[in-house]
Amino acid sequence: MVKPTMNAFYAQSGGVTSVINASACGVIQTARQHPDRINRIYAGRNGILGALREELFDIQQETTSDIEKLKTTPGGAFGSCRYKLKEASSSTSEYKRIIDVFEAHNIGYFFYNGGGDSADTCLKIAQVSEQMGYPISAIHIPKTIDNDLPVTDCSPGFGSVAKYVAISTREASLDIASMRETSTKVFILEVMGRNAGWIAASAGLAATKASDPPHMILFPEIAFDKAKFLTKVEQTVSKEGFCVIVASEGVTYQDGSPIAGSTDKDAFGHKQLGGVAPALAELVKKELGYKHHWAKSDYLQRSARHIASATDVSQAYAAGQQAVEKSLNGDSAIMVTIEREMNPDYEWTLGSAPLIDIANKEKFVPADFISRDGFGITQKALDYLLPLIQGESYPPYIDGLPQYAKLKNRLVPKKLLQSFNLLATRLTCG
Amino acid sequence: MVKPTMNAFYAQSGGVTSVINASACGVIQTARQHPDRINRIYAGRNGILGALREELFDIQQETTSDIEKLKTTPGGAFGSCRYKLKEASSSTSEYKRIIDVFEAHNIGYFFYNGGGDSADTCLKIAQVSEQMGYPISAIHIPKTIDNDLPVTDCSPGFGSVAKYVAISTREASLDIASMRETSTKVFILEVMGRNAGWIAASAGLAATKASDPPHMILFPEIAFDKAKFLTKVEQTVSKEGFCVIVASEGVTYQDGSPIAGSTDKDAFGHKQLGGVAPALAELVKKELGYKHHWAKSDYLQRSARHIASATDVSQAYAAGQQAVEKSLNGDSAIMVTIEREMNPDYEWTLGSAPLIDIANKEKFVPADFISRDGFGITQKALDYLLPLIQGESYPPYIDGLPQYAKLKNRLVPKKLLQSFNLLATRLTCG
Repeated sequence: MVKPTMNAFYAQSGGVTSVINASACGVIQTARQHPDRINRIYAGRNGILGALREELFDIQQETTSDIEKLKTTPGGAFGSCRYKLKEASSSTSEYKRIIDVFEAHNIGYFFYNGGGDSADTCLKIAQVSEQMGYPISAIHIPKTIDNDLPVTDCSPGFGSVAKYVAISTREASLDIASMRETSTKVFILEVMGRNAGWIAASAGLAATKASDPPHMILFPEIAFDKAKFLTKVEQTVSKEGFCVIVASEGVTYQDGSPIAGSTDKDAFGHKQLGGVAPALAELVKKELGYKHHWAKSDYLQRSARHIASATDVSQAYAAGQQAVEKSLNGDSAIMVTIEREMNPDYEWTLGSAPLIDIANKEKFVPADFISRDGFGITQKALDYLLPLIQGESYPPYIDGLPQYAKLKNRLVPKKLLQSFNLLATRLTCG
Repeated sequence: MVKPTMNAFYAQSGGVTSVINASACGVIQTARQHPDRINRIYAGRNGILGALREELFDIQQETTSDIEKLKTTPGGAFGSCRYKLKEASSSTSEYKRIIDVFEAHNIGYFFYNGGGDSADTCLKIAQVSEQMGYPISAIHIPKTIDNDLPVTDCSPGFGSVAKYVAISTREASLDIASMRETSTKVFILEVMGRNAGWIAASAGLAATKASDPPHMILFPEIAFDKAKFLTKVEQTVSKEGFCVIVASEGVTYQDGSPIAGSTDKDAFGHKQLGGVAPALAELVKKELGYKHHWAKSDYLQRSARHIASATDVSQAYAAGQQAVEKSLNGDSAIMVTIEREMNPDYEWTLGSAPLIDIANKEKFVPADFISRDGFGITQKALDYLLPLIQGESYPPYIDGLPQYAKLKNRLVPKKLLQSFNLLATRLTCG
């Protein structure tokens, strides 16, 4: 059991989003409401590396107004990382080091804000701390623009990317429609989504009727068929005078080979993708001869706090809040979930799920969300997606630019004599 | 002289912007206030092609509320085109055709909304109509995201792209700063601007102090020096832990050859598919080994009405308004200009300049706007740029998405017996 008054440790993991700091804000503001239970709040410098290296930012040093500003600030305010701990089955030294650091700083509450890989880390920390006789409450706060976490209805971070992609698609389509006769006929927007096509699917929200752009969506869930693709592009240009395509970075051929892109791998062994849009553009030019343009939003899409979904921001904040409440309630090894109420009006509540059901599992776009020809989304997908982009949560502006939080991020003095020997090779990963 | 009551013709030309429709709105609403002078208002379908083909949209059919919505709608509501009329010195047949169409529809006011090439067209039409004894008032309304029109202090369309690029750079930089230790070290954003680096320069607004990103800006005005570039990237990564680069699509080597060669192959034998950002990314990886990401906003930047500069929208509208007023005043062969008042607070007024001083001239980023090392902007540039991005002009949203005008665009019956034989080859230009 967690002792009556202990400290809390919060860390951000994996690719950051435009609303992960809203979850941090939810954690911090809620924890501050319980000084009888939670004494000090620390944040890991660069995610879990902060725990391994005993680099803890002291949240007490931050003003309430700076913490409030986290609600409207994109990126990871304390730094994040891509660093996968060793498999607990082969070595628990890293987990043990984390628990040692937690013990040295009297940490009883661990809040880990990340995706599927981080859920696994969070689970292992809960298990190892138990084994070591220093049980802590380890709660996972969902975060991923990819929306691929299982159990939860959606993941904080996704709704804002969905909104950005839907708006950008609608806007760029108006541009191309204006110019189609004498200029660009085919426009390709490449969006993120390595294995799951949720972000690409959200472009479908841009359309208000069947013939509206985007005319084609390419999902990683659907094998790329060159002939079918070219036929549909040609038909669309013939009929509409132009063709807008939104392609997921993870689109591959039937055999899994990428359409384009490097074969680099990131820290988790995932292929680092990119270059789908120029590859498709080249194909269109070579085979059909159409003038084309392409765009790749890359990090712009996941940091576009200026047009975040108010629903997403609320859910991100509430997930942080709920994590603290669950923790104070004695829960551990769970992830906060967002649950959709089964009624025509969208309503959501918070729940939780055991991390064992979450870790290392991916949720893909279901078959009945994708239209029969494989190039669009169904009404069912629209019904799922539309509530997630509702509301505009604008950041404050000064002098024409959004004002984002800049924290002090002061480290607390180390208490352990030994530093931990991180393998350098694992810090310069793909 | 224009007859007491005549009709007006408005057309959009060249690449569209997020605020060109605000100029259209300014023209239409102002013209509608003068029914004694301007009887009917027409808009060309796909720009000047609408005049050549006698395809005129009847603005009378549009509701006042739809016209009002043009203020917040990106793209070209009547269609635009890339079509350069033949040199008047070799053939005036196209100009004569346009005047014939104007005469058939009793058009005495011609408003042409475009960039440098269109200024030339507008001037020729004024001259040829004079020669043909059917003088019309031809007024050019400036429009270009490139900000390369001479005489005018700035061009409607630019301020909004500048704002989008500055915000996107600030947001993406927070993302990369969070992840720099274990993930991306170098991020490259490719922006538009073939010959003039105004858009790239505007990324410099994202910084609040010297070490802030963007750490490097690449201008078309400054020859690309590979060694110098790589040294600065390496120094920046060493010092800041990451490096954010904003590169203009028009960056070239000293001899004018492009950075991204279409025949280059990458390490994997893939054809290098154009694009300055991927080419620079490949260079960084090959020479310095840093993990990188890159983005190319392409049309997203020039259609991003969701984050338009309120100042830009006001100027675009006012330019349309002023065009009508100048026209009613008997002016012709002029372009409306935006003039900066010489006082510390930014104030602007409208003026005009003879088209002969505008047509086919480009305004580049001056040397004293670019920092000594060639990779940044000076205080002088900041002082020029900052006023142009002031204010947020948000469009109305329904169901989480911006609501953009959808006009009826009904053609008026043709009056001429002959159709005009457009050369098909010139309709598929670059």
